[in-house]
Amino acid sequence: KFDSSCQPIISFLREMKNKRHGMRKVIHSIKVGVALVLVSLFYLLDPLYKQVGDNAMWAIMTVVVIFEFFAGATLSKGLNRGIGTILGGGLGCLAAAFAQAVGGIGRAIVVGIAVFIFGAVATYTRQVPNIKKKYEYGAIIFLLTFNLVVVSGLRAEQVMQLARERLSTIVMGFIICIFTSLLVFPIWASDELHDSFVTRFEDLARSLEGFSKEYFENINEKEKKSSDNFISNCKSVLHSKSKDESLVNFARWEPWHGKFGFSYPWGKYLKIGEDLRDLATIILSLKSCLRPSTQLPEILRQSVKEPCEAIVASLAWTLRELGESITKMRKCGSEETIVPKLKSVRVELSRILTPSTHGTTVENTNGLGLAG
Amino acid sequence: KFDSSCQPIISFLREMKNKRHGMRKVIHSIKVGVALVLVSLFYLLDPLYKQVGDNAMWAIMTVVVIFEFFAGATLSKGLNRGIGTILGGGLGCLAAAFAQAVGGIGRAIVVGIAVFIFGAVATYTRQVPNIKKKYEYGAIIFLLTFNLVVVSGLRAEQVMQLARERLSTIVMGFIICIFTSLLVFPIWASDELHDSFVTRFEDLARSLEGFSKEYFENINEKEKKSSDNFISNCKSVLHSKSKDESLVNFARWEPWHGKFGFSYPWGKYLKIGEDLRDLATIILSLKSCLRPSTQLPEILRQSVKEPCEAIVASLAWTLRELGESITKMRKCGSEETIVPKLKSVRVELSRILTPSTHGTTVENTNGLGLAG
Repeated sequence: KFDSSCQPIISFLREMKNKRHGMRKVIHSIKVGVALVLVSLFYLLDPLYKQVGDNAMWAIMTVVVIFEFFAGATLSKGLNRGIGTILGGGLGCLAAAFAQAVGGIGRAIVVGIAVFIFGAVATYTRQVPNIKKKYEYGAIIFLLTFNLVVVSGLRAEQVMQLARERLSTIVMGFIICIFTSLLVFPIWASDELHDSFVTRFEDLARSLEGFSKEYFENINEKEKKSSDNFISNCKSVLHSKSKDESLVNFARWEPWHGKFGFSYPWGKYLKIGEDLRDLATIILSLKSCLRPSTQLPEILRQSVKEPCEAIVASLAWTLRELGESITKMRKCGSEETIVPKLKSVRVELSRILTPSTHGTTVENTNGLGLAG
Repeated sequence: KFDSSCQPIISFLREMKNKRHGMRKVIHSIKVGVALVLVSLFYLLDPLYKQVGDNAMWAIMTVVVIFEFFAGATLSKGLNRGIGTILGGGLGCLAAAFAQAVGGIGRAIVVGIAVFIFGAVATYTRQVPNIKKKYEYGAIIFLLTFNLVVVSGLRAEQVMQLARERLSTIVMGFIICIFTSLLVFPIWASDELHDSFVTRFEDLARSLEGFSKEYFENINEKEKKSSDNFISNCKSVLHSKSKDESLVNFARWEPWHGKFGFSYPWGKYLKIGEDLRDLATIILSLKSCLRPSTQLPEILRQSVKEPCEAIVASLAWTLRELGESITKMRKCGSEETIVPKLKSVRVELSRILTPSTHGTTVENTNGLGLAG
């Protein structure tokens, strides 16, 4: 009853959410356009061009390359680029100066050896899993800057001058990005992460209800289709790991905003995500109970229908309660409400599972019990 | 018996595999170093420098940015970069010529509008899921080149000349990358994908055996630890989706080599991967049967031990057979060997599941039945 009356509301909410997601993409595109126009002013306006000259190219490159969808991603890429440039440029200058000191044909040899060693070491470092996740882009930029500085040190007279000018234009590009990304309609990875968790609790609760409905009630083809929907929702929870990891990584870079304070415990989202994936595994395994070949006879199913539906309702309520407590960021009343509810579920379950009373009804409640 | 005697062999094979993986990383790093030295020769050798001048910078940049671990990834990034540069450069020249024709203050306005429109449209396109997967890098490079060409069209006299020179150095960088990546110790994404599937079949078979062993035999703490190992193996199968997708994407770019011919059906790996993940879900749900609170009394467990172990052995054998047929790329004898085996498993299962004979033993075989 609840499910069928809520169906249009839920699908409406989903549509709204999709629309909002579409809108965000449009907003992001417009923001990138604006940032590019701003950075092009270095070329378009004569007084600015006289200041920076052709190095304005590096500002444009910075904006194109680091402006990402989420504010945290932009910040992370920008800082990686900045630090990579400084380190690479500094070491490049040192290596170029050393090569200069050697002089003669040795100069080219020293540069060649330095390029090889730094290239190999930086590439190896880039592949170390922990560095790959957070600092891969920085390692690429380090290598790029180092190479450009060390080889052009052979040709250009004033490497230091060149490096300084490039760095300053990169910083300008970075500032324009940060300005447009963080201050004008910011799109936060933290919000995305937070909201996605709320949806996941709801998705799992609805899948559980959907499976139980399909098992106990004679449903028609149209409703059968919606059960495919549950399965795909469960699977999307199951495959959320890499998305979660990158969102948490971005969220960590984002400054204090909205409801998320300093040192907000982002790591806990990873843990909750892991638990939700375990839960999704269990709920998905119920799917196999729906196959006609493994189903119990109608009469046996009806005999456990009522207690099972009550259990499913309790579990779904618990999931929604947990999801809501995350949405509203309040402590959920686990002591007072959730724990007693789960305890009564366990009692009910062990009553059904006791072989002497309903020997053959173990099959379908098994999975539900695990979900508790 | 089989399991314990094979343990050291399997762990040795795993170690060898890890070592080989480590070696591949070292080889890749050395290859990048060599490619960088080669591309630096444009600066280091006077005759070459006289030819390309400061544009050699673009060759270095190309090598640093597109040289990826897998040959297919390098090819895909290189082609994306090439096509993006040509399209962006072409359209940029057109827009610059149009702005030139307008002249006066209108010139800057035309350039500004073009930068905004192309920036927004390219950014939006970049986010479309299908394009994001394969052509995101191309879209970035398109945008970058377009912007550089259109704004420097205002300042530089010979945009076309500049664009042609840059393109030719990018092509040189690309050739150096392809040469080092594909011809010297190539690391193929196709091999990685193929091998990972073989391992997955083996992992699932061993998890199944491990769970059954832990359920039916009294095992000690040390062996319990290895069951955590099974679980993490199953989970790594479960979370293989995004890795599979990117490997298939790279493998599609890779030219004919080794055992993989033209138009090799890479898409089928995605389908098999999906099925393996479904199977891993089911095997993982067996985990909950191991918890003491849900276990059946010892005597009941012993009564189904023999048939269940036979079933597990059949299923594990089937998985290994399928894995081996993929390794050796031969048609597996599904008609003659596998189908009869699975049929006998089904008969055996329905015998155990019949309520009248073993009413209470349904629980633990349930999950195993699904795995068939």
